[in-house]
Amino acid sequence: MEELKNKGLQARRSSWFLGRMSSDEKKAVIERIAELLVKKADSIISANMKDLEEAEKNDIRGSLLDRLTLNTQRVLDMAEGLTQVALLDDPVGEVISMKKRPNGLQVGQIRVPIGVIGIIYEARPNVTVDAAGLCLKTGNAVILRGGKEAINSNIAIVKVIQEALISLGVPPEAVQLVENTSRESAVAMMKLNEYLDILIPRGGQGLIKTVVENSSVPVIETGTGNCHAFVDASANIDMATKIVINAKTQRPGVCNAIESLLVHSSVADIFLPVICERLKGLNVEIRGDRNVTEIIGYAVPATEEDWYTEYLDLILAIRVVPSLNDAINHINKYGSKHSETIITESYASSQRFLSEVDAAAVYVNASTRFTDGYEFGFGAEIGISTQKLHARGPMGLRELTTTKYIIYGNGQIR
Amino acid sequence: MEELKNKGLQARRSSWFLGRMSSDEKKAVIERIAELLVKKADSIISANMKDLEEAEKNDIRGSLLDRLTLNTQRVLDMAEGLTQVALLDDPVGEVISMKKRPNGLQVGQIRVPIGVIGIIYEARPNVTVDAAGLCLKTGNAVILRGGKEAINSNIAIVKVIQEALISLGVPPEAVQLVENTSRESAVAMMKLNEYLDILIPRGGQGLIKTVVENSSVPVIETGTGNCHAFVDASANIDMATKIVINAKTQRPGVCNAIESLLVHSSVADIFLPVICERLKGLNVEIRGDRNVTEIIGYAVPATEEDWYTEYLDLILAIRVVPSLNDAINHINKYGSKHSETIITESYASSQRFLSEVDAAAVYVNASTRFTDGYEFGFGAEIGISTQKLHARGPMGLRELTTTKYIIYGNGQIR
Repeated sequence: MEELKNKGLQARRSSWFLGRMSSDEKKAVIERIAELLVKKADSIISANMKDLEEAEKNDIRGSLLDRLTLNTQRVLDMAEGLTQVALLDDPVGEVISMKKRPNGLQVGQIRVPIGVIGIIYEARPNVTVDAAGLCLKTGNAVILRGGKEAINSNIAIVKVIQEALISLGVPPEAVQLVENTSRESAVAMMKLNEYLDILIPRGGQGLIKTVVENSSVPVIETGTGNCHAFVDASANIDMATKIVINAKTQRPGVCNAIESLLVHSSVADIFLPVICERLKGLNVEIRGDRNVTEIIGYAVPATEEDWYTEYLDLILAIRVVPSLNDAINHINKYGSKHSETIITESYASSQRFLSEVDAAAVYVNASTRFTDGYEFGFGAEIGISTQKLHARGPMGLRELTTTKYIIYGNGQIR
Repeated sequence: MEELKNKGLQARRSSWFLGRMSSDEKKAVIERIAELLVKKADSIISANMKDLEEAEKNDIRGSLLDRLTLNTQRVLDMAEGLTQVALLDDPVGEVISMKKRPNGLQVGQIRVPIGVIGIIYEARPNVTVDAAGLCLKTGNAVILRGGKEAINSNIAIVKVIQEALISLGVPPEAVQLVENTSRESAVAMMKLNEYLDILIPRGGQGLIKTVVENSSVPVIETGTGNCHAFVDASANIDMATKIVINAKTQRPGVCNAIESLLVHSSVADIFLPVICERLKGLNVEIRGDRNVTEIIGYAVPATEEDWYTEYLDLILAIRVVPSLNDAINHINKYGSKHSETIITESYASSQRFLSEVDAAAVYVNASTRFTDGYEFGFGAEIGISTQKLHARGPMGLRELTTTKYIIYGNGQIR
């Protein structure tokens, strides 16, 4: 794809420009974009109307349609999001370490932009603004490839962004949109190793899987959350109830909500009736193993498949386990290595759970719903990594940087 | 491939065991392996003989044959290497940060093993020992897939390693060898996402390219070094001569040797005759642009291809550039982002070079030959990453770990 190669080359060139910008200059650019988005809100909303008309023809409804829809308030929110990002500390330039070697060489490691970032996402125009802001803040050029359903909105948004860039003397190719939304353009992006340093898929499980399996560009996998709460033998039952209800029902459609509950057999008789009554009252369907269905009459028998499932819905699978060990083994076998919590008053159990559960975020006595860049205090988030390379857990600005070694010598040779 | 899936499952299980081992226990295991390698050197050397006989039949010679060959001294060296690794600090368990959030949650980030590491390499039996030691030290299980030319040596070595593991109660599947050395087994490893957390190719450019292009498992790309020295207008000519000679000739076959020399036009008349005379005396072939061939009669005209080439040989391409800016642009265009050095007495030039050259290691007034885990003080090295995700530059033990968030609460919900 010639178009994409050309965009890649332009992006690489602009990335050198961005890499030389000071923090103040980058802040000013992001603020200018926010300003212009508000000023040109009408043009964006009318482009969005075209997308919405198409969506209607194609019978797109529900949350998909909701995410595609822009209005004045949503444009203001996008601009406000940018203003927040503009104010964050710039991670670029941080000297992480600097040591003098015996031969007098000073070897330092400094934080630098990654270069060119590709983002493949679905029909959410707000991701266009959001991703552009985070990439510019960290001195990275970005190539955006959104879903075809949002193409008119995206074209209008990127036009405004590029206008803002030009007005401050920044190459407009720092933020580019792939206007060809065919499957081929996505595949071509996954093979654009020469110009793309990393590729971040943002969206549903299908999209992420496709990118992970087909990309030769390094990918940051964000992801699915088959999260668990384990109520230990010594758990404070009130606290356990509060945490399980919160982790399951406060926002069931997100990745850090729990999908399964494990209960230590010694507290099953006391805890299960309490929690299930509360869950039932909140319209949560309960699927349980035999121990659960024996105690809870209205529980549906759980299948092997249930333990693997991320429902993203008001459904909870419950299993009674004879020991902490079994709980840890269950989580490490069925979980998606996202967020896991134990509710316990035992020091030994808390330490073992923290150390032996293999996940991006492991909690003691708190809801898994806190796995989030804002909740962790990063001030921004581009996703939650469930892979182990580069970034694991919520990714903020720092995760959009890499490092380089800088070495000060005075004539050293080997 | 059933064999590989089974190995993957076993490796995953052993990785949980390894993750629970203390630093002292891991140290003892590596020392036991070193001990047993020496004790069983004969069995390893006689297995190696079989590989050497095959190699002779297949007409394998030169450095390939040399790297394949084991003898008593080399086995002792491998054991000594392990002993060194055993003594290094264990990076696992380091708490990188720990902060209290306004809601009382304590959010910490701790260094943990990656899990299961796959290594695909060529006919170098020493990599088998080396990789096993580094992975065990960092609590990772490893699946090794070496070149078919070394299969008998590798089988013998891994047998000894597993014997040592068993003798200390560690699951022998912590270190496994893929005995099927067909192309299919390599391809299957590249798709083993369920069981492999990362894949590290170690070897020539062809091997690395194949793995990068075909692997859906995250890869750490190690690599090619098309490195440059730039002699600035204000360079100390003696220092420049010393550094260029060292970077080109001290060990021309390695990735951190330079392949191209850029000379500022204002010193070309003085510097080129000096350096070329010295290089000629060391049998270095010189390929130059027109400015160079005009001054140096015996220089061969360089082609566009030359600027892209990693010779790994006594050949140096030389170009005269009119400015620091042109030097930086040349390096960012043709270089492989490995190691780059400027020789200068100018503060401004040094700062611009450090900041604008896009490479894993950027030097002022020193030879590029220092880009190495040992020279940087890491005490070990599993390769030099030229990619930007996870690790960039020399990779030591720390780069074989990942992190997880650990969160201490007392009932927090959202």
